[in-house]
Amino acid sequence: MPNNRVVDRPIILGLVGDSAAGKSTLAKGIVSILGPDRVALLQSDDYHRYSRSERRRFGVSAPDPAANYLDILEQHVCLLRQGKPILKPVYDHMRGTLERPVLLEPKPFIIVEGLLGYHTRALRDCFDVKVFVDPDEALRVKWKMARDCAERGYSEDEVKLSLERRAEDSQAHIHPQRTFADIVVRFAPPETQPDECGARLNARHLLRPTLPHPDLGPVLDAGGKSGFRLALARDTDGKPVDVLDIAGDIESRRAKAVEDLLWSLIPEAHHLRAPLGQFIDHAGQPAQSHSLALSQLLLTYHLVKAALGHFAR
Amino acid sequence: MPNNRVVDRPIILGLVGDSAAGKSTLAKGIVSILGPDRVALLQSDDYHRYSRSERRRFGVSAPDPAANYLDILEQHVCLLRQGKPILKPVYDHMRGTLERPVLLEPKPFIIVEGLLGYHTRALRDCFDVKVFVDPDEALRVKWKMARDCAERGYSEDEVKLSLERRAEDSQAHIHPQRTFADIVVRFAPPETQPDECGARLNARHLLRPTLPHPDLGPVLDAGGKSGFRLALARDTDGKPVDVLDIAGDIESRRAKAVEDLLWSLIPEAHHLRAPLGQFIDHAGQPAQSHSLALSQLLLTYHLVKAALGHFAR
Repeated sequence: MPNNRVVDRPIILGLVGDSAAGKSTLAKGIVSILGPDRVALLQSDDYHRYSRSERRRFGVSAPDPAANYLDILEQHVCLLRQGKPILKPVYDHMRGTLERPVLLEPKPFIIVEGLLGYHTRALRDCFDVKVFVDPDEALRVKWKMARDCAERGYSEDEVKLSLERRAEDSQAHIHPQRTFADIVVRFAPPETQPDECGARLNARHLLRPTLPHPDLGPVLDAGGKSGFRLALARDTDGKPVDVLDIAGDIESRRAKAVEDLLWSLIPEAHHLRAPLGQFIDHAGQPAQSHSLALSQLLLTYHLVKAALGHFAR
Repeated sequence: MPNNRVVDRPIILGLVGDSAAGKSTLAKGIVSILGPDRVALLQSDDYHRYSRSERRRFGVSAPDPAANYLDILEQHVCLLRQGKPILKPVYDHMRGTLERPVLLEPKPFIIVEGLLGYHTRALRDCFDVKVFVDPDEALRVKWKMARDCAERGYSEDEVKLSLERRAEDSQAHIHPQRTFADIVVRFAPPETQPDECGARLNARHLLRPTLPHPDLGPVLDAGGKSGFRLALARDTDGKPVDVLDIAGDIESRRAKAVEDLLWSLIPEAHHLRAPLGQFIDHAGQPAQSHSLALSQLLLTYHLVKAALGHFAR
């Protein structure tokens, strides 16, 4: 990674959001830019306190903080941040069981992905960049249905039941963490035309002033017809934010221009240029999305800058 | 525990020695004095890197440092010493498998028991009191045979094979740790008469000057015929040590006098007086040994004194 890196401990990115919010898909692009040998991925689902059958027996849901070893998650993220290895617990999503732990060595970048990463102050303090992934709810339900049936051995009815079971805890514990994020990323279907494949989702980034965001001036348009625009707005809580909208149907030429700008803003990482925006569509086929690619690149921008000591803490 | 305790972090006792050296039996008495709610037990076998079948496949034995997560053991002991909980790995001795980890909360006293606790400098630095348990080898083999067949599902032939497999690593990695102990405890059968039950084993404590040992003057005898004597000697490495010999056939009256003295030296713990020296003999029956009781009490003396800040580090 950047040869002139000045921060000699791992840089920690949080990707927090509800189940099937798109966290792993965002993470994949970031890993492909920075290089798989430079990024360690920590999934906080591994810190579930109970197996699936125990959760049912005890009547607790996965997003309930009491159903997770959050103090141990915090301890482990702190240790990784200090450059130390951890013995990471393992939750098997397919079988719903807790398995033998595995050694996880720190790498220059660490992505912590999960439901409750910003639940406590001590946890939040572990991160260099905090992202909350908050897609359109109907979209998330669709993603969850596809993923849990294909990869986690659930039936459609079981996913529906799981969504019902978790709804209250999601609302009570996951959603309130949105307020602690430096960036809120929201994918939503275009309003004007159907997007069965998911390649033309609009991406909206709320940019909070807790991080120095890149100067996007050169590519921003006044009118906003070309798919990439920044506007001042009030967040749902009334607080001021910059809203960056990336249209799902942004022209390839235009997307390329924004990509070029972002790469030019992190010349330290320019040699890492990698294909971005790739995802598996709901038919199980590989696909590509400009708004996803640009989102991945924007998040990586912050990691590279953090490694360069641009927002020293 | 002592109401006037001045050290507000857990006090850590190491009980290191080969498999079936008698570590757990010593620990049991200490736990019964200090109270099970005040002592956490950490068995370093839980930090095995491989399952039994993996060890066979890879051709490594349990006492091989490379077959253990010693860096994680060190990290966990340090965390406990700081009063922090850990998510402890679990090795199932019966099945020879690694299982889901469990939460271990620190307690005022922590006993770390296992094969390789003093293998690295950083590990050794975690302990307040370091004991090496080094019984007569024939006795250890007998104990291992009895324990592994009764509690760990091995056949006699399997235990013999396991002893052979481990012999070289035991010699290379376990025995050299003896030199780092503050106290070396050695149980051996009496020379003059058979001791089938194990209730009359002699106990020899090498007392190194790395800890302030109790003043046993009042009960020591010049002649040494009454079962409890202290003598200056050279250790196997030529270095000077105090050698405390507790005869297996010490008279009950005499053992009681020594016990009384030791309890009087730790008045802070006097209200904790508990039945000591209990063990399960090789016929599976509960039995009692004076030399074991006095050994347990001597080790506890050091823990109580450490909690009172008597050897501030």
